[in-house]
Amino acid sequence: MRISFIGAGRVAHHLARALKERHQIVQICSRKYEHAAALAQAVGAEAATSFSALKAEIDLLIIAVSDSAIADVIQSVHRYAPEVLIAHTSGSTDIAKLTAVHPRAGVLYPLQTFSFEREIDWAQTPVFIEAAELQDSAILNALANELSQRVYEYTSAQRLSLHLAAVYACNFANYCYDMAKQVVDAQQVDFSLLYPLILETAQKATAADPKAMQTGPAMRGDKNIIAMHAEMLEQSQRQDLKAVYALLSEQILKRHHS
Amino acid sequence: MRISFIGAGRVAHHLARALKERHQIVQICSRKYEHAAALAQAVGAEAATSFSALKAEIDLLIIAVSDSAIADVIQSVHRYAPEVLIAHTSGSTDIAKLTAVHPRAGVLYPLQTFSFEREIDWAQTPVFIEAAELQDSAILNALANELSQRVYEYTSAQRLSLHLAAVYACNFANYCYDMAKQVVDAQQVDFSLLYPLILETAQKATAADPKAMQTGPAMRGDKNIIAMHAEMLEQSQRQDLKAVYALLSEQILKRHHS
Repeated sequence: MRISFIGAGRVAHHLARALKERHQIVQICSRKYEHAAALAQAVGAEAATSFSALKAEIDLLIIAVSDSAIADVIQSVHRYAPEVLIAHTSGSTDIAKLTAVHPRAGVLYPLQTFSFEREIDWAQTPVFIEAAELQDSAILNALANELSQRVYEYTSAQRLSLHLAAVYACNFANYCYDMAKQVVDAQQVDFSLLYPLILETAQKATAADPKAMQTGPAMRGDKNIIAMHAEMLEQSQRQDLKAVYALLSEQILKRHHS
Repeated sequence: MRISFIGAGRVAHHLARALKERHQIVQICSRKYEHAAALAQAVGAEAATSFSALKAEIDLLIIAVSDSAIADVIQSVHRYAPEVLIAHTSGSTDIAKLTAVHPRAGVLYPLQTFSFEREIDWAQTPVFIEAAELQDSAILNALANELSQRVYEYTSAQRLSLHLAAVYACNFANYCYDMAKQVVDAQQVDFSLLYPLILETAQKATAADPKAMQTGPAMRGDKNIIAMHAEMLEQSQRQDLKAVYALLSEQILKRHHS
């Protein structure tokens, strides 16, 4: 297949590099030339900085831009590639945002957290596909199966609940790590001491129900420790950390003691 | 060494089983006989249910009870073993709680999350020791080094900041997983789809600064998605999930956009 990308961010970076093994990546289009050029070079594609430069002789156009930009992009891009299957990669954007403008619309959503510096285990990454037309569903299904052993046809509503859950399981969990680092940094204590704990906590949650795996002062109902930690955060003038501590402890207490 | 335990919970369970490889576990003392007996049997010790049954001919007594019980326990136990080195295993309890009553006091704090069902990688688990007297520090240091390759002499204040950080990195991160599971459960979506994401997020945070690894709508400043997610949680009447979503998103936005 001949595949082009709109966007040169983290998702485009990982997806284009995975797809180039079996397909021709034709163009990488991004407003910033250096971004487009860097990824284009890595995958043997051309760099483009405007939609009007898009080549329509392709089989698939992947829109890997931020959710808030998808509606604008599909408006502009439809004109230059009216017959091409166009898929976005977003968890929280309904396929209707595309079909409202472009009939051959699809979704290819990899449920993973992407960083430039880290390789992804594509085979184990769940990929969720959706398409407005049956034959496009088959095309995306075949493509996704080359990437991953875990491909699912999900509706936009199902995908949305997965993405919302991912915000908790990934984005908020990572912010918890970030807060933990701020706590030890303030005492010149090495954050890497917490690595075994972080990894074991994640492994536990993927081996059994995380509710049953909950530990800590709030789960034990230990109000003395909770009050002491609150006092420490108050004294170090970290109202932000204290607000999170109070809210999450209150909810954990309620979940396990009522 | 001859070692006894007060407490038969998760920490005692893992610690006694690890220490019995090289030492004699003499007694496991717990108010509930069945708890004491179960652990005692596993480590070849006697079960006891009252402090008055404690044998004083031991080298170390480990208090592995909830933080709030430590002060009471040391008061009672000192009487029956006034000459014995007594160490607690708590992150947030100052050694002064012991020394106020008992001169030969120590701390042996393993920074890990313990479940009955899961084995611990002791070699990689950081263990923090502290003792009121120099020779006791050497005893605890030798013992901890048998368990772990990562043994540190930390003051109570340093240990406290580690424990507070662990509440964020472990207890709160696990509650994020728990919330994520509740989100997908409500849509009959399989939580195991999130496993690769959970594991990759934890691995990222142990490979680089979690602040730099932050992803998601709040980090991108995508207020449309944040508002849509809030609306979903409102409609499903999950004020608890919504409150966490709002607070953490606000803080992540602030941390990355100001």
